[in-house]
Amino acid sequence: MIVPQTLKGFRDFLPQVALKRQFVVAKIKEVFERFGFDPLETPALEYAETLLGKYGEEADKLLYQFTDNGGRRVGLRYDQTVPAARVVAQYQNLPKPFKRYQIQPVWRAEKPQKGRFREFLQCDADIFGSPDYLADCEIIALAGKILDELELRPYTILVNDRSLFEGIPPKALTTIDKLTKIGAQAVRDELGARGFDANLLDRLQEQKPTENLSKIIETLPDFGVQRETIRFSPTLARGLEYYTGTIFEIEINDYRSGSICGGGRYDKLIGQFTGTDVPAVGFAFGFDRMLEAMEEKKLLDRSTTSTQVLVTVFGPRYIDEALYVTTKLREAGVNTEVTLAGDAKLDKQLKYADTKGIPYVVIQGPDEIAKSIVLLKQMRTQVQEALTLEDLVLKLKKKSGES
Amino acid sequence: MIVPQTLKGFRDFLPQVALKRQFVVAKIKEVFERFGFDPLETPALEYAETLLGKYGEEADKLLYQFTDNGGRRVGLRYDQTVPAARVVAQYQNLPKPFKRYQIQPVWRAEKPQKGRFREFLQCDADIFGSPDYLADCEIIALAGKILDELELRPYTILVNDRSLFEGIPPKALTTIDKLTKIGAQAVRDELGARGFDANLLDRLQEQKPTENLSKIIETLPDFGVQRETIRFSPTLARGLEYYTGTIFEIEINDYRSGSICGGGRYDKLIGQFTGTDVPAVGFAFGFDRMLEAMEEKKLLDRSTTSTQVLVTVFGPRYIDEALYVTTKLREAGVNTEVTLAGDAKLDKQLKYADTKGIPYVVIQGPDEIAKSIVLLKQMRTQVQEALTLEDLVLKLKKKSGES
Repeated sequence: MIVPQTLKGFRDFLPQVALKRQFVVAKIKEVFERFGFDPLETPALEYAETLLGKYGEEADKLLYQFTDNGGRRVGLRYDQTVPAARVVAQYQNLPKPFKRYQIQPVWRAEKPQKGRFREFLQCDADIFGSPDYLADCEIIALAGKILDELELRPYTILVNDRSLFEGIPPKALTTIDKLTKIGAQAVRDELGARGFDANLLDRLQEQKPTENLSKIIETLPDFGVQRETIRFSPTLARGLEYYTGTIFEIEINDYRSGSICGGGRYDKLIGQFTGTDVPAVGFAFGFDRMLEAMEEKKLLDRSTTSTQVLVTVFGPRYIDEALYVTTKLREAGVNTEVTLAGDAKLDKQLKYADTKGIPYVVIQGPDEIAKSIVLLKQMRTQVQEALTLEDLVLKLKKKSGES
Repeated sequence: MIVPQTLKGFRDFLPQVALKRQFVVAKIKEVFERFGFDPLETPALEYAETLLGKYGEEADKLLYQFTDNGGRRVGLRYDQTVPAARVVAQYQNLPKPFKRYQIQPVWRAEKPQKGRFREFLQCDADIFGSPDYLADCEIIALAGKILDELELRPYTILVNDRSLFEGIPPKALTTIDKLTKIGAQAVRDELGARGFDANLLDRLQEQKPTENLSKIIETLPDFGVQRETIRFSPTLARGLEYYTGTIFEIEINDYRSGSICGGGRYDKLIGQFTGTDVPAVGFAFGFDRMLEAMEEKKLLDRSTTSTQVLVTVFGPRYIDEALYVTTKLREAGVNTEVTLAGDAKLDKQLKYADTKGIPYVVIQGPDEIAKSIVLLKQMRTQVQEALTLEDLVLKLKKKSGES
């Protein structure tokens, strides 16, 4: 016998959770498209060389890679930025700016821990082909608008410019990046201990935004961003090595796990494929943190099923009647389940509806059939009403429209 | 420099195609939920032993498998039936019947050829926990209803029962399965050549449906299936080894690539995990074939973007006005793109809208700004009209609602 189990760091999403996830994904897609972004999908597997060396040494170790049957070195998608950059390099005729969004799982062989998984969904939006500060603004505004629509407020948009780090070794930045986690003194100590200038942190903190960044901060309100949500953060570093200009992160103010969105400008990545740079700016939402924050704020519906009604079967001789009502309801667009057994006890059927969280049941015994009516029972209130089939359809159709 | 390329058998879906795919997926999901099925998502990677030996020897060779950093033998999802069976075995408290749908990519190391890929989307629906013929009916009716909704008509539902093959070696069935491809005489010859009874085909063709299958065929019309679409096919075998009872396939009548949906009952699969059988019945749609058939029948929208309008920028001094209109349109729910450069020539902006397939552009020069109006130009007809901002919003909002 084979033990039924998932791999560590991998998850099944059972209906209740899958429904919530799909609800949030649909909302995000809607906002992406409202901002004029179109969907892109790339394969789960890429040539390993496409993925390697783009994220930094540490990250390369986390890549799921193997040799396929044809002897090719391949890897599972580690993020969506590099595959999208590969697409832009590969299909050079794409109209520019190319504004694409991508919502797909990515895989990283990380040590699993609370809130960190080996397979997780990313929601990305990027603009390829525009070097303009307006593109940076639009990307930041889009990320903010998604949080507005999900009611994940208040939030703070931390912005910085990588060019302020010129001359600072990347490894020192890794330490600087820990500021909110370990505090200023610990950062100074670690910088010193690792042989860097211990005053680096204080020097960075005194910096002013670049001219370009100032323009972005000034223009963001025209894109619908509230001025008070934007904060210049001269120590914000962002780990990934490919960033070249504006970088940003968004924190939900009262959500302890911190940043749920990060992004920035990376004008040199596509040139690694083609030799010709294409300016690019974008972000990725960490979907799990987003969902966790929404859960904490009780912003997610508690329903456990999308099914609106269970049509019960009164007995083996009443299957036809149950199927007739079921088919009518489905034709009217009502999400309808029917008991798939002629001999199930009625109380067991009601218990099933209750356990599954189906809000209504239809009951139709010989008396009701003789009178050409059905009983509609609301599970929560246990209130029952007699209705003609036409009225049943109208009533449940209305309920479906509400949800 | 790294060559930007996809692996053989893997595909990028650029916006025009991705939009079509998402449209079809959304339709399918809607019908799944209307029949009372809820979503399930399982990981891309599973323990290899979960996947191996379930599909037959041939299939095992097609599994993408490797050893992960932790020394575990793992494999990429080969279909969605086995992972779902693993879920049912693992979470024994799921309310039964457990009706789930699953729309995720699967991977097979097949020889790529026209219409056959190494990564492709499957759309599955299954009912776990009901041994009743009504469950078989519902599954078949659901598959048919999806085709109705996608207007993929007329179609034929071929049904058979695996129990009619009792005593016939599985390898002989592989030959029988080729009937529509190679014809009766070639099947007889191949059976003989492989040492099987050459009369097997003719014996099978004389069989009558089982009692259970007859009941299913009789009841399907009550689930909304048209009687004339159902055909008993005593030679339909279906490759996968896990089927135990009813099996079926659906063919679009005038679509040359044949079957686009297949499924059946497999009551012994879950027992391989738990030792206790759980009855199960379901199907999978081959999404690519579905899309191809819809394409052939011109059932798919030709739009290349979901963007409704491009707001042009008349010059560097008019960025504010363009952003103002953009933000108003987006707030009203209109999918809106704005030119992300103050110095782009107007004709280049119009050309971009044209190339990208954006149906409308908004133009706002100094004259329009002075009069507090905007010009709305329809790209297809080149007709231009002057509107107040309020009327622009109303007009485009209405258009969005239509699509």
